[in-house]
Amino acid sequence: MNSLDYFFEPKSIAIIGASHSTGKIGHVILQNLISAGFKGEIFPINPKKGTIIGKQVFASIKEIKTEIDLAIIAIPGALVPKALKECGERKVKAAIIISAGFGEIGNIKLAQELQKVMDKYSFMKIVGPNCLGVMHMKNGVDSLFLPAYRLERPKHGEISFISQSGALGSAILDWASFKNYGINKFVSYGNAMQVDEADLLEYLGKDDSTKVIAVYLEGVRNGKKFFKILRKVTQKKPVIVIKGGITAGGAKATKSHTGSLAGSSEVFKAMLKQANAIHATTLEEVFDFARTFVREPQMKNNRIQIITNGGGYGVLSADALSMNGLQLAKMEEKTRKEILKGVPSYAIIDNPMDLTGDADNKRYEVALNNISIDKNVDAILLILLFQVPTLDSDIIETVQAIKEETGKPLFVISAGGNYSETHRMALEKSNINTFISPFDAAKCFKELFEYYKNRTK
Amino acid sequence: MNSLDYFFEPKSIAIIGASHSTGKIGHVILQNLISAGFKGEIFPINPKKGTIIGKQVFASIKEIKTEIDLAIIAIPGALVPKALKECGERKVKAAIIISAGFGEIGNIKLAQELQKVMDKYSFMKIVGPNCLGVMHMKNGVDSLFLPAYRLERPKHGEISFISQSGALGSAILDWASFKNYGINKFVSYGNAMQVDEADLLEYLGKDDSTKVIAVYLEGVRNGKKFFKILRKVTQKKPVIVIKGGITAGGAKATKSHTGSLAGSSEVFKAMLKQANAIHATTLEEVFDFARTFVREPQMKNNRIQIITNGGGYGVLSADALSMNGLQLAKMEEKTRKEILKGVPSYAIIDNPMDLTGDADNKRYEVALNNISIDKNVDAILLILLFQVPTLDSDIIETVQAIKEETGKPLFVISAGGNYSETHRMALEKSNINTFISPFDAAKCFKELFEYYKNRTK
Repeated sequence: MNSLDYFFEPKSIAIIGASHSTGKIGHVILQNLISAGFKGEIFPINPKKGTIIGKQVFASIKEIKTEIDLAIIAIPGALVPKALKECGERKVKAAIIISAGFGEIGNIKLAQELQKVMDKYSFMKIVGPNCLGVMHMKNGVDSLFLPAYRLERPKHGEISFISQSGALGSAILDWASFKNYGINKFVSYGNAMQVDEADLLEYLGKDDSTKVIAVYLEGVRNGKKFFKILRKVTQKKPVIVIKGGITAGGAKATKSHTGSLAGSSEVFKAMLKQANAIHATTLEEVFDFARTFVREPQMKNNRIQIITNGGGYGVLSADALSMNGLQLAKMEEKTRKEILKGVPSYAIIDNPMDLTGDADNKRYEVALNNISIDKNVDAILLILLFQVPTLDSDIIETVQAIKEETGKPLFVISAGGNYSETHRMALEKSNINTFISPFDAAKCFKELFEYYKNRTK
Repeated sequence: MNSLDYFFEPKSIAIIGASHSTGKIGHVILQNLISAGFKGEIFPINPKKGTIIGKQVFASIKEIKTEIDLAIIAIPGALVPKALKECGERKVKAAIIISAGFGEIGNIKLAQELQKVMDKYSFMKIVGPNCLGVMHMKNGVDSLFLPAYRLERPKHGEISFISQSGALGSAILDWASFKNYGINKFVSYGNAMQVDEADLLEYLGKDDSTKVIAVYLEGVRNGKKFFKILRKVTQKKPVIVIKGGITAGGAKATKSHTGSLAGSSEVFKAMLKQANAIHATTLEEVFDFARTFVREPQMKNNRIQIITNGGGYGVLSADALSMNGLQLAKMEEKTRKEILKGVPSYAIIDNPMDLTGDADNKRYEVALNNISIDKNVDAILLILLFQVPTLDSDIIETVQAIKEETGKPLFVISAGGNYSETHRMALEKSNINTFISPFDAAKCFKELFEYYKNRTK
């Protein structure tokens, strides 16, 4: 049986159902592959032949003489079994079936017919049907049939993301692009008649270019297989799972959406915990947790130092940490003495450390240099309120330098308008995790701490 | 005793400590008053005299012959009692003491000296010391000493906001401006030696231009007075309270920040509930709740209909509603029949209602027209995923028209990149409450429902 590699690193792709009409799915896919800069050979397939976007069209896959690594099938559901059979005969290594109209709408007969073809040519790896398929921008692979002006493709990164739902997956990719989060491999796997969430998880677990895995699912095909693989993968890298249908109302909805029969959500959550997977409730959490694991080092214990130039934000941050079971660090006496030497007497050198409203870059530098080497501090929550004129762009290099040296997780909180947002985004570009809300930051510290703690057990 | 009106609608303002040096607090305040377009008379006070930004400077408030409604005092703390005494002699009606250095740093002697002056001239209303003071952009009143390029001033609106913390207040105003939320009156009241949070709450409760009140506090000066007034005000309009120091770690921090001694947070939360105030945990919640109450009508019961073009978002939304104790509405049979006439057979007319990935404006129109008059539906959660090319700008007018007619709360969820965000913001400008996350929307529905339910009790 072939490897899943053929989905992400194919040397040639056939598009069965390539269309001459702009806007049609089979046209958009071809256009996207070309835009994505796919370097291998592309074979549009359509009985009408001719050319599409300058590419020669073949009437059937049987006409192509060279080897085909990947077929993308985008034709009416009823025609899919025959097309897949031809792929099998041509020894195509992998296929993505975009087409819908199978089990998800109760067409069991067509699904069974398709299953027979899959079984006969079992060396072929199949993703789908009823899916968006695969995106791996590094190699220019992009079977998503949505135009780039609607679904912006995110930059290449270290987070891989698999989604049972196509529309949700596409909204999230688009949003990730907007937020400038990097995505490595994306798979919308739909009905998962062959390759399922567990197979993809196993593959991504072994994939060195994937640092963090995120999963949206409504149900799993084979719970035992899934959790066995999940336990194994989380020993190597973090896996963040968001599950649709964790309430009675949501579970009823999954049934009409993907046909998934949700079991008890309490059991599911307990199993995630046992497997040391990270459970996210919202899509925002998925990406907050993911960028935390991509950028932050291991967190040895949960003692956190808050440094602020606004008392109220310090108080709310202390609340946020406490609410997430984290500790306020008690700095070493020598640290306190050193900092006191370099700041005015009205600064409060405690936790929160309030450098007060007129704090400038130099005052933050003194605080950070000393806290970053304090043995009682495991991580730093740095609040930068840019409403005061004493704090300016210099702070960005200061924070970046500390972050590179300290070896401790460090988050920045910054809330405000244009001036503030410009600086927050500059910090993000310098690879610093920033948050608007201390509560979001605290949740990330919690997950970071617990994942590594449980992994070493 | 004078009315608090003089803080928000003064006819004349004296700035005691107006400075000739750009960047100094006493200079920035004068500049901001001029930029804000304050229409009354402005009297800069400084012993050096001369002119500042073209305004004639007076050596002392005693030199001014006309009536003075409001004095803004921004001089070193030690000089404040004498200056305030002069204000009292001149029969100034209200004063904002920006200066710090009193009780908050343990200078009890100076605080007592100031208290004596306040008591002697008790007709004067005093905000502060140790605060940013007052902003009421409609009248061009702005005592905030932070330049507009750092702290952008939000547009005039219907939310009034009082904050014990100045830095937090200023970050939030700046952020509110960025988000395009309208603010009516803002007060950072600092040490609250005379006018306190309860007085301000009572005033805003009677202020017809304030539709919703938001409060950040770390402690209350007089709990009995505060809760008595709170109970009264919430019978007229919603009051959203966020309290710093609701955990042990946070409470310790409030002590060194504002000197507030936090009592049991559980008791505090129970008292908020009893007073039918809305408790927010994060600053995001404060403004999500506030704009909900500004824009949405009363919600009669908690049965909500989800309408979506992406199944996964429908599932997560059903989870979000259930997690917040809300019900999925069961539409009337006639509604279902009417909608079925106007949508393809593969659309799922249930709750969530999945109009599927190729839904266009017309399909949404059919769904919305029928759901908006359904007696079993109390509110609508509308999901618009703009990644698909079938959905475009037409939907904005459709939603706006429904919103104006229906009389039911309606939220829109939309997540994505530039195309999507452009449309989400267009909806916001059309006075539609939009959210990126269904979980945030669900929390707002919950607070909306519970506030009116408890008020009618």
